[in-house]
Amino acid sequence: MNYKAIFRVVSYALLLEAICMIPGMLLCLMDGEPRVVLAYLAAIAVILAVSIPLYRQGKKAPAAFYAQEGFVATSLAWIVLSMLGCLPFVFSGQIPSYVDAVFEMVSGFTTTGASILTDVEAMSRGLLLWRSFSHWLGGMGILVFLLALTPTQSGGGYTMHLLRAESPGPSVGKLTPRLHQTAKILYILYFTLTVLDLVFLLLGGMPLFDALCTAFGTAGTGGFGVKADSIAGYSPYLQNVTTVFMLLFGVNFTVYYLVLIRHTFSALLDEELRLYLAFFAGSTLLITWNVRGMYRTLGETVRHAAFQVSSIMTTTGFATTDFNLWPSFSKAIILMLMLLGACAGSTGGGLKMARVLLLLKDLRRSVRKSLHPNSVQVVQVNGEALQEQVLRNTAAYLTAYCVLTLGSFLLVSLDGFSVEANISAVFACFNNIGPGLAEVGPTSSFAAYSAFSKVILTMDMLFGRLEIFPMLALLSRHTWRRSL
Amino acid sequence: MNYKAIFRVVSYALLLEAICMIPGMLLCLMDGEPRVVLAYLAAIAVILAVSIPLYRQGKKAPAAFYAQEGFVATSLAWIVLSMLGCLPFVFSGQIPSYVDAVFEMVSGFTTTGASILTDVEAMSRGLLLWRSFSHWLGGMGILVFLLALTPTQSGGGYTMHLLRAESPGPSVGKLTPRLHQTAKILYILYFTLTVLDLVFLLLGGMPLFDALCTAFGTAGTGGFGVKADSIAGYSPYLQNVTTVFMLLFGVNFTVYYLVLIRHTFSALLDEELRLYLAFFAGSTLLITWNVRGMYRTLGETVRHAAFQVSSIMTTTGFATTDFNLWPSFSKAIILMLMLLGACAGSTGGGLKMARVLLLLKDLRRSVRKSLHPNSVQVVQVNGEALQEQVLRNTAAYLTAYCVLTLGSFLLVSLDGFSVEANISAVFACFNNIGPGLAEVGPTSSFAAYSAFSKVILTMDMLFGRLEIFPMLALLSRHTWRRSL
Repeated sequence: MNYKAIFRVVSYALLLEAICMIPGMLLCLMDGEPRVVLAYLAAIAVILAVSIPLYRQGKKAPAAFYAQEGFVATSLAWIVLSMLGCLPFVFSGQIPSYVDAVFEMVSGFTTTGASILTDVEAMSRGLLLWRSFSHWLGGMGILVFLLALTPTQSGGGYTMHLLRAESPGPSVGKLTPRLHQTAKILYILYFTLTVLDLVFLLLGGMPLFDALCTAFGTAGTGGFGVKADSIAGYSPYLQNVTTVFMLLFGVNFTVYYLVLIRHTFSALLDEELRLYLAFFAGSTLLITWNVRGMYRTLGETVRHAAFQVSSIMTTTGFATTDFNLWPSFSKAIILMLMLLGACAGSTGGGLKMARVLLLLKDLRRSVRKSLHPNSVQVVQVNGEALQEQVLRNTAAYLTAYCVLTLGSFLLVSLDGFSVEANISAVFACFNNIGPGLAEVGPTSSFAAYSAFSKVILTMDMLFGRLEIFPMLALLSRHTWRRSL
Repeated sequence: MNYKAIFRVVSYALLLEAICMIPGMLLCLMDGEPRVVLAYLAAIAVILAVSIPLYRQGKKAPAAFYAQEGFVATSLAWIVLSMLGCLPFVFSGQIPSYVDAVFEMVSGFTTTGASILTDVEAMSRGLLLWRSFSHWLGGMGILVFLLALTPTQSGGGYTMHLLRAESPGPSVGKLTPRLHQTAKILYILYFTLTVLDLVFLLLGGMPLFDALCTAFGTAGTGGFGVKADSIAGYSPYLQNVTTVFMLLFGVNFTVYYLVLIRHTFSALLDEELRLYLAFFAGSTLLITWNVRGMYRTLGETVRHAAFQVSSIMTTTGFATTDFNLWPSFSKAIILMLMLLGACAGSTGGGLKMARVLLLLKDLRRSVRKSLHPNSVQVVQVNGEALQEQVLRNTAAYLTAYCVLTLGSFLLVSLDGFSVEANISAVFACFNNIGPGLAEVGPTSSFAAYSAFSKVILTMDMLFGRLEIFPMLALLSRHTWRRSL
């Protein structure tokens, strides 16, 4: 293992983090909160104290950088960034418990949006800005951002293996033959769409601070709100804008790129996109029917149904109404959407539509093969035959997904909450959504869970965002053996 | 498709069913219940009226019998046997609703043990005997029983494809090179173990009728009781005997055969068996710790914990205490055990320990492969390399399992019960266990669900017992196309 190369990646990521804290600090300065400014400065000092020695070590790193290094560097970077990124919360005394602060920070970076805050409006705006900005950073990937910022293609496989470890989905879509360009293009698209969202929100009369935080939460499909009632207090126009943008950020960014470059709409026929939109439309329709009579007009019912469906299936977690009060059938749909998640290559979490598609196609093949054992059956997506290794990894992913969900559910149950709360808390964290049902519903928080459960749920968020394998690699005996 | 061969299998199975109804009918005659005797006679008449024309058609069947025919014959036979086997319940007026009666009968054959009866003790003993006997028939497989009864090896692949479709587990263990012998050996072992259980129950002073029904329910890992409080009213000795025998019937029967034939205990080192026993011991220990203080002595606590764990993980469903009142952590363990199930090649249901083992090993391989893409990794079980096709089918099985669980959960939620009740009702039926949690806990019944939900849950029981693929084959467009 090339430890020095890993130190190098982590040190760069930490330097980026320190820079990204500056806007929040400046806002505190404007708001006249010297104590929080000092907390920020102390946090930045700690980050530099950790990153500079790592940076020095990393300078002498050999060139070799393979899959193993990519996995370990990515998961380590995310863990270290969260453990240090939460320091302003702790130092300012606004989240005194370190476990709570790490939970909140991991929830930010992993774009989960689950919170331990019981009164979000009591927090400093400068801290809320950093909290929401972490969604934006984590959404498309912190290391991908780093790659996008570096001027030239770095050698030794950094780009390829970091992209692969951090990008969501069963396979990395290469937009251009040069992978380094891909990172840049992704971030340009991401930045443009975020600005567009911001403009639409400002046009609807949302205050600048609210609009910034909401746009970050939407773009990263995170879901941290700055109001106690999430998005419920804003106008129907602002809610609808957010519904549409959440849905847009849940789409595979490759689709946008293809539409832009080839000037053709054939990219919109992508099988994953069609499945995604079908789930959105179907779920909205069924919930609208199921909750009829709970709101004043049909328009209002559709608005709430579409918002909640978009929010949950893109794993954002904003809310305009308390779906905990909906009937069982609607709650069951919400639980199902929690698992499925958004498209691969988007900022959303969950199992991902692409995996659902592959798993269903693989199942169909197995049924056919069992009926006609000697026939040859190939799985195709968008008209192209798929590599067997991708199918195998997807199958293994489902296993890991089930094992982690069950295991976490078991451990979190030690706190004695209801089955509904525990299973939905695990779903909400592991799939990077945010709110669950019952005791952890959209109007409550995760504050009541024990420190032990919070650590488990924090791990779930990281496992979910990094798509399990990098984290498993970090924990695997295999990684730490000297030779094979 | 060789329809005539399928008719042949179904007609034989129906004739066997008519014969198996006779003991129940005789008991009603002894108990002086002429109305129920008439109901039995009418049911037998209907069964003969259906089976004789099928039998005539089947006589002229061509020899060809392949995987497709095996799947379709098996699932059709199970459906028809259930739809006609429940007629004594309906004709006697003791279960007036036909949907309820089919639910009860499918629950019997699939060894689920979920019941729509609100007062089981009010039912005729002659009907209860048939109800419990259906567990015994379904446990090791009705068509396997048929194969065991036929004197000589029948040609055309009947034995192989029926065994494969009806036997639980990822692959059929051939005990002898001649498959036909396998069916006989399985039933001899099954019969012997059942008689042994019966003797132990009688020695403990259980009345003959109760002992017969309990032994059938234990052997088939079914779980229909003849008392309102299931096994709670019997002595601790009888409860412990049942704990041990449930556990024994959840073991792969191949293990017993190997121990008997080779006179060696090396078969006990089987990896699946070790995983199964580890889950039993671990879960019993954790629950004993978690429910400490709820019972008078440590002995009583261990007895209840071990009984419930054995009952749930073998998917039997008997109860000596209401685990619905246990703390969340114990309930979470129960829910997990519901999914995992017993060993392959046993009478138990669920995902099966063998599949859990394969999935975990496949996952480990995928993690290693992702770390070292060029390495060659082979999955071994009991020291032998496994065929890739078995691994692929197991992965597809998990997908189908998740899709069916989610889909059923969604549909059953339409009735408006709690999330806990709905998810556990689906788990309990799909994994052939019986009782769930909350509204469908061990002290309640499935009576409150709507007819629609009962149909869904009935389908789940069949999908679970036949391990999904035969039922999917029956519903697949591919099966019914004239040519490929």
